[in-house]
Amino acid sequence: MQKRRRNEKKLYQIGEFDLIERIARKFNISKSVVKGIGDDTAVISYKKDRYLLLTTDMLVEGVHFSRRGANFFQIGRKSLAVNISDIAAMGGIPRYAVISAAFPRATPLSIIDNIMRGIGSIAEEFKVDIVGGDTVRSQSIILNISLLGEVKKGFLILRSGAKAGDLIFVTGNLGNTRRLKQFNFIPRVKEAQDIIKRFRPSSMIDISDGLVSDLHRIARESSVGAVIFEQMIPLAPQASLNQALYDGEDFELLFTMPLESARKFYKEQISPLSCIGKIVEKKKGLTLIDKKAGVSTLKEKGFKHF
Amino acid sequence: MQKRRRNEKKLYQIGEFDLIERIARKFNISKSVVKGIGDDTAVISYKKDRYLLLTTDMLVEGVHFSRRGANFFQIGRKSLAVNISDIAAMGGIPRYAVISAAFPRATPLSIIDNIMRGIGSIAEEFKVDIVGGDTVRSQSIILNISLLGEVKKGFLILRSGAKAGDLIFVTGNLGNTRRLKQFNFIPRVKEAQDIIKRFRPSSMIDISDGLVSDLHRIARESSVGAVIFEQMIPLAPQASLNQALYDGEDFELLFTMPLESARKFYKEQISPLSCIGKIVEKKKGLTLIDKKAGVSTLKEKGFKHF
Repeated sequence: MQKRRRNEKKLYQIGEFDLIERIARKFNISKSVVKGIGDDTAVISYKKDRYLLLTTDMLVEGVHFSRRGANFFQIGRKSLAVNISDIAAMGGIPRYAVISAAFPRATPLSIIDNIMRGIGSIAEEFKVDIVGGDTVRSQSIILNISLLGEVKKGFLILRSGAKAGDLIFVTGNLGNTRRLKQFNFIPRVKEAQDIIKRFRPSSMIDISDGLVSDLHRIARESSVGAVIFEQMIPLAPQASLNQALYDGEDFELLFTMPLESARKFYKEQISPLSCIGKIVEKKKGLTLIDKKAGVSTLKEKGFKHF
Repeated sequence: MQKRRRNEKKLYQIGEFDLIERIARKFNISKSVVKGIGDDTAVISYKKDRYLLLTTDMLVEGVHFSRRGANFFQIGRKSLAVNISDIAAMGGIPRYAVISAAFPRATPLSIIDNIMRGIGSIAEEFKVDIVGGDTVRSQSIILNISLLGEVKKGFLILRSGAKAGDLIFVTGNLGNTRRLKQFNFIPRVKEAQDIIKRFRPSSMIDISDGLVSDLHRIARESSVGAVIFEQMIPLAPQASLNQALYDGEDFELLFTMPLESARKFYKEQISPLSCIGKIVEKKKGLTLIDKKAGVSTLKEKGFKHF
């Protein structure tokens, strides 16, 4: 028994994508599920004019934050903000959240208070109701928030709609992660609504694991390739190209739109949006054109979960 | 700073109830929330004829199960079953779930497969769609499932509706916990539907922390007291009275109904239901009448979370 275990395949030997595939294969899905595992949120058919959106996200002490020097208000805020960002990237509005919180027995109440204040602050800002939860004991602090939202049927944008010829855009600037932005980013709910109203993007995702990693997700779900241009990528102050490409948590929106919509964009001169490249055929893969017109392949290596 | 920390109040110095109160105070709730923190699930006004129900539950290795000798299929099954049980106790039907799963890097894939098979098996049994999730790295295995359900408006049963004079009932038998039932219990969805159709209970809860502990919750939310009778409590085979009163996880339904409904119950002789006592005024507290007619106060000491 022990021997067999030792030869068994372990989690770190497969990637996150393979793990999710492996899990997803085990479940059947009924017709009311418009989109199950594999987008920013699940999409459920429930009302005539809008879909329900459901998403969940876990933060673990020692992995996503460390106790020493932690700002627990910001950690609490982030635990809800990442979920709001997912709802935003579907074209949705966040509504109701439940919190699971695990704490060691000796946790000072001031830490718990600060976490909950952080959650409460962004909940109020985005009009999310905290409607329930679960509190359990553990060795380290764990926060899981599940968020229910909704989207008008015509506003739903999936990862899977990008077509060869579409242009690629991002909001804001990229490469902020290792500094403050991963904690105090503002989920792009309003921006997404505005973009959808004006341009009807063909696909959208929030950048939670790095530009390249999340562009790979759009490419995979849409069965396309992509080319992006170094000189068009909006760098955060002092950010390097590598940080902009691979740093995980910018929480900006990455989206694509057909050329006709993009023409409108250029006419309206919307400043916090940047065109960074275009969608191409799948067989061309993902490439970067640098400032000297050199071409390099973009491998999927953003944030490594395992 | 360090000094101040040492004098600070710690989590283990307050109870779970105080912790939840403390957390709940930090959040405001909008009008669409029929019931927020403080029942088996949240209740949200969303459609004309039915409410949405949302609940969440976390299982942590080392607290809720240990790696050694663990049956991971059963642990997976339980992680969803406890949520289904919560939906059942509101009078609802479970529908859509999201899973957050945290694993150490060296976790054998067979463990992950077994957990997911366990979740899949009860998901299929209760027609729950697994629609999404989050996978993260951690030091120990953590499973969080959030479950969305619905309830016909007329079928909703809260913890808060018990009135002095109502009779108290349970499904099944009690005191099984420390053996197998905590893993292979069957959530009482069908039974709850049947009970509600016939008797319109005044309050209902699932027994997840022990009969006395969950009866205290009904008493607190309904502002009532209760008296239960030792000789009427349905003991599981070989269970002691203490196990039936305080063992945590029977996952049977505990509910109350007015005398008129109870008369109907006695006429119809529904066997898996047992009347165990009655609701009294709040000032009388919670008491047990033993077989020799001795009276004792029932303190809230079920499963201690912290």
